[in-house]
Amino acid sequence: MQSPTRQVFFLSNGTAITAETLGLSLLAQFPSHHFQTRTIPFVDTLEKAHAVSDEIDRSINQSNQLPIVICTMGDDDLMKIITQSKALVIDPFGDILPRLEKVLASQHLQPGQSHRIVNPSLYESRIDAIDYAMQHDDGGKIQNYDEADIILVGVSRSGKTPSCLYLALQFGIKAANYPITEEDMEYEQLPEPIRPFKQSLYGLTTNLNRLVNIRQERRPDSRYSSVDQCRYELRAVEDMYLRHNIKYINTSEMSVEEISARIIRDNELHRVELS
Amino acid sequence: MQSPTRQVFFLSNGTAITAETLGLSLLAQFPSHHFQTRTIPFVDTLEKAHAVSDEIDRSINQSNQLPIVICTMGDDDLMKIITQSKALVIDPFGDILPRLEKVLASQHLQPGQSHRIVNPSLYESRIDAIDYAMQHDDGGKIQNYDEADIILVGVSRSGKTPSCLYLALQFGIKAANYPITEEDMEYEQLPEPIRPFKQSLYGLTTNLNRLVNIRQERRPDSRYSSVDQCRYELRAVEDMYLRHNIKYINTSEMSVEEISARIIRDNELHRVELS
Repeated sequence: MQSPTRQVFFLSNGTAITAETLGLSLLAQFPSHHFQTRTIPFVDTLEKAHAVSDEIDRSINQSNQLPIVICTMGDDDLMKIITQSKALVIDPFGDILPRLEKVLASQHLQPGQSHRIVNPSLYESRIDAIDYAMQHDDGGKIQNYDEADIILVGVSRSGKTPSCLYLALQFGIKAANYPITEEDMEYEQLPEPIRPFKQSLYGLTTNLNRLVNIRQERRPDSRYSSVDQCRYELRAVEDMYLRHNIKYINTSEMSVEEISARIIRDNELHRVELS
Repeated sequence: MQSPTRQVFFLSNGTAITAETLGLSLLAQFPSHHFQTRTIPFVDTLEKAHAVSDEIDRSINQSNQLPIVICTMGDDDLMKIITQSKALVIDPFGDILPRLEKVLASQHLQPGQSHRIVNPSLYESRIDAIDYAMQHDDGGKIQNYDEADIILVGVSRSGKTPSCLYLALQFGIKAANYPITEEDMEYEQLPEPIRPFKQSLYGLTTNLNRLVNIRQERRPDSRYSSVDQCRYELRAVEDMYLRHNIKYINTSEMSVEEISARIIRDNELHRVELS
């Protein structure tokens, strides 16, 4: 039985990234329910808090169901206003901060500042990594591969670009990617530009159906998106990975987040220090 | 007084993104402490859990301080092993899930699956948005601006590219960016390629010192990174924003996350539905 749609609010006086990330993880535990989520960042004045609280209350009239609010509000007065709304209000910091305070033996600040720039050198590392990923996307620039923390290889549309960008943005990791073309597949050796960097290579592959579907959206009814062509390319790259002893993963069931987390783990990549 | 470094572990049987995001927000509340953080994803067997637990215990001997563990483990048996380690173990789901179960009147699944692909159409939207951002970065392609959800403008190194990529990756928002060059600054009118899309424009600006520093890292002691040049460009774009009534923000104190969250709010952008 499909439940009716339930309203869920992710609130914060900051970016609301923490409330949203935690909230979505929690909701994923209830797959038989249908949720309509709304993220409201920068609820940073009494006026805005009252407006949001009113909005939460109005949503009850529409759906006749108790709304859920996940709220990492960095101000007790603001939090109080949200708590007074007619909803299940969850304050993830509320239970945890006192326990941390006890161990650290010091008072916490008010939350809501965690996604500001705290560490300028971390910011610089991310920006450098993004520059690197942009320049070295899709074999665009084949110099400076020696600077790469990792070089992703794979056929067109196997997830190389999003993974490189996520690694750069989220973790400050310098990731290049090099597409294995049909021409490359005809040779036993690795393509010349990546041959000296075997230790930095990591292969992506995917399922036949998924590749066909993704390519069909780009170039419908073309040779590029045909079953035969996709099957040939996937076999050829997987043979290449095995022949040259290149670690690889099948990305077809994975989100960009999961691909990136596995690449970091499998290659013991050094992430930029986060705090 | 600076406290000695305290070990903090973010653990999960999945990507550990939730544990890490929440954990870093919590630690940001204690700025006078120094933490050494370590994220360990995919702790998904009893063996791995025992190994991590041993590692946590070993870290006590090194630092002589109680380590902190933030753990969103999706399996009771695995969780039990981690709980037995000699640390302050925080299980953010532990307190919250029972409250959600009560309201939703159904049992939760085991966590740890929240960053897998749940919704293929969400995945496609993100990939489309990434393709769009890559093609329309730095004025690279000036066609199809009508498809943009937002077009960021600003001087070189004001944060346009990272913001566009983050909007695409995280929210599936199609963001182009167009650099305002010195030549553009000589005219009263908006640059021709973006002139028809005034409603989609959003300006970035930054502080003089910050821009000089960032440009100095790229091209030290050049005209490009000189104080005079940076001052001229920043004044010219801010004048342009005011003259044409373009909303803008100063990004100098902001992380990419915060810039993106503000762009979404200020422009009431429609994000891809997340659940």
